[in-house]
Amino acid sequence: MRLADLPTPCLILDRDKLERNLAIMSAAVRRNGVALRPHMKTAKSAEVARLATSGEAGGIAVSTLAEAEYFAAAGFRDILYAVAMVPAKLDRAAALRSSGIDLKLVTDDPETAAAVAAHARATGSDHRVLVEVDCGEHRSGMDVASEALLAVGRALGRHCSGVMTHAGHSYDCRSLAEIEEVAETERATAVAAAERLRSIGLATPIVSVGSTPTALHARSLAGVTETRPGVYMFQDLFQTQIGSGTPESMAVTVLASVIGRRAAENRFLIDAGGMALSKDRSTASAPRDWGFGLVLDIRGERGFGDAMVERANQEHGIVGAPAPLPFERLAVGMRVRVAPNHVCMTAAQYDRYHVIAGGDSVVAVWERVNGW
Amino acid sequence: MRLADLPTPCLILDRDKLERNLAIMSAAVRRNGVALRPHMKTAKSAEVARLATSGEAGGIAVSTLAEAEYFAAAGFRDILYAVAMVPAKLDRAAALRSSGIDLKLVTDDPETAAAVAAHARATGSDHRVLVEVDCGEHRSGMDVASEALLAVGRALGRHCSGVMTHAGHSYDCRSLAEIEEVAETERATAVAAAERLRSIGLATPIVSVGSTPTALHARSLAGVTETRPGVYMFQDLFQTQIGSGTPESMAVTVLASVIGRRAAENRFLIDAGGMALSKDRSTASAPRDWGFGLVLDIRGERGFGDAMVERANQEHGIVGAPAPLPFERLAVGMRVRVAPNHVCMTAAQYDRYHVIAGGDSVVAVWERVNGW
Repeated sequence: MRLADLPTPCLILDRDKLERNLAIMSAAVRRNGVALRPHMKTAKSAEVARLATSGEAGGIAVSTLAEAEYFAAAGFRDILYAVAMVPAKLDRAAALRSSGIDLKLVTDDPETAAAVAAHARATGSDHRVLVEVDCGEHRSGMDVASEALLAVGRALGRHCSGVMTHAGHSYDCRSLAEIEEVAETERATAVAAAERLRSIGLATPIVSVGSTPTALHARSLAGVTETRPGVYMFQDLFQTQIGSGTPESMAVTVLASVIGRRAAENRFLIDAGGMALSKDRSTASAPRDWGFGLVLDIRGERGFGDAMVERANQEHGIVGAPAPLPFERLAVGMRVRVAPNHVCMTAAQYDRYHVIAGGDSVVAVWERVNGW
Repeated sequence: MRLADLPTPCLILDRDKLERNLAIMSAAVRRNGVALRPHMKTAKSAEVARLATSGEAGGIAVSTLAEAEYFAAAGFRDILYAVAMVPAKLDRAAALRSSGIDLKLVTDDPETAAAVAAHARATGSDHRVLVEVDCGEHRSGMDVASEALLAVGRALGRHCSGVMTHAGHSYDCRSLAEIEEVAETERATAVAAAERLRSIGLATPIVSVGSTPTALHARSLAGVTETRPGVYMFQDLFQTQIGSGTPESMAVTVLASVIGRRAAENRFLIDAGGMALSKDRSTASAPRDWGFGLVLDIRGERGFGDAMVERANQEHGIVGAPAPLPFERLAVGMRVRVAPNHVCMTAAQYDRYHVIAGGDSVVAVWERVNGW
């Protein structure tokens, strides 16, 4: 089957670009001498995870328990659930552990840490938990200098397996120098937290950091044991503007059909709207705002110049451009591809990838796991 | 099972509120003497469709062929696929028709109209098509005064079943008077288009209009045969600000757990982020901007004042408020509910509803159809 034969809208994954992106990250992480733990929150696919972990020993990270269960069923044994745990989810986590999965949890909360220890006593589950610290994103994680950090560590006791932090604010960087600085703060914060926990006698074998920009551009990861980037696998319009990749590295696009033409307004419509692209507007804060996505031709090239999805209703994408659009070749039914702002959100609207390699032949269909 | 026992995040549907919303729309449409064709793009659920069509004779509208197939399998026979057709989708449409579904299609394109007629000749499928006209939204649809309108009608010939229009720009109205004016333009445009097609001898039995604001507030629908509102069933933070409902009418919320607290910043975190709420920012253009959603207590009441999801990362919702948050009762694991900006987008992140009625008992689980 070829691209032009697929029902639209659907999600296209270019395996050649994926493999190049994986090789670039592998090399960057290896240079810093740490393990790569690919974060599967973006791809949510066992086939992608197999490629991303090939030759790597660092396991995977996931963003939901549904992902943990899916990847466990697909044979992955070393899984970090990298979102703060709540007590009500401990039974599901314990079920995974008792099936032989080395599932690691995350907390930044003394009461939750105590609840984990109590759950372990009550059920016999050998929970492993990383203490989350804040390296400047101010989303989640503890102050590395706080007394509470030690309180969480003490409450966890033998369940403490290390520390983790996430420099999500690397997405705000607009230069390599800024990313390097955030990466160094991320590293130093994680290492300092590990040292504090070790100073009170707690084992902290894992020192986990990571975001795509900092994993690619950290100058040193001394004291760190692993990094957890995710979006690097696919790249998107936002990442390629902040130094994580080039426009040619974008591996995932949405295949859509032209469903209407409005030549007088220099606009056309496609069957990829807010539902097919997501309503993510990441590039609104990037150097170049691409609306709800950049419109490419069926080959994935800039056949429409700077055309972008300017409005996104539920099933209608309204495409406009600064230059006149080529209405002479824009028949209803013509296929285009849309590069997403934020591929994690766009891919989540689909249950599968149509995989292309070496042109426009669809060589595989890979499933995704969505939901919770 | 009770709300507090459900895994989070998950989607909650209050059946009592749903039924009140349905009754209000039924009465409004009946007052205008037209048929109600509920648009199932919001609910995407056979159980909701059965309630919404109870006592109504107007069939349903859908936004994808996947919906059409799902509702056909659930026993619905009169289905309008209300997004512009493309030739490559005609085989799927024909398969539905040949299984006994009275599927109606939409086009505003002369070449597509010709392709429909050619497909009908080649396959024997008796396609029924509504000509889409533009009543001021400027998204899709033809100019009612254009020659092209008649060209589409002629190309369709005996496949022409009427006209349709959608006053999506009613969402821009901020007063009842404005909505009434848009509703009158919607009505007059559809009726004028039908009259032009009838003047060249084409049957146009269906004159279809509709959006939630105009369906509720139209003063007259003379000449119209049906209206197709959808979001009225559930309501949301946007609709309740533009006169479609009250805050108490919001029937769908996301149940979430507190996963972190940052008292020094007057913020807490929940496990409903961009993936669980969608990245829709509809209320950015409403009188009151609710970020990514209004945070309610587990009873669905304003127990946190004006708290809202200010930032939405993939699985982290960051909640802030203008007044001090009650950290003394905000334990990790505590349940809250989030009222969505735009319920069509939020509901689409889930494959089912947990239905409550008369309190916090979960009385049913209703599936949804997503994708294409």
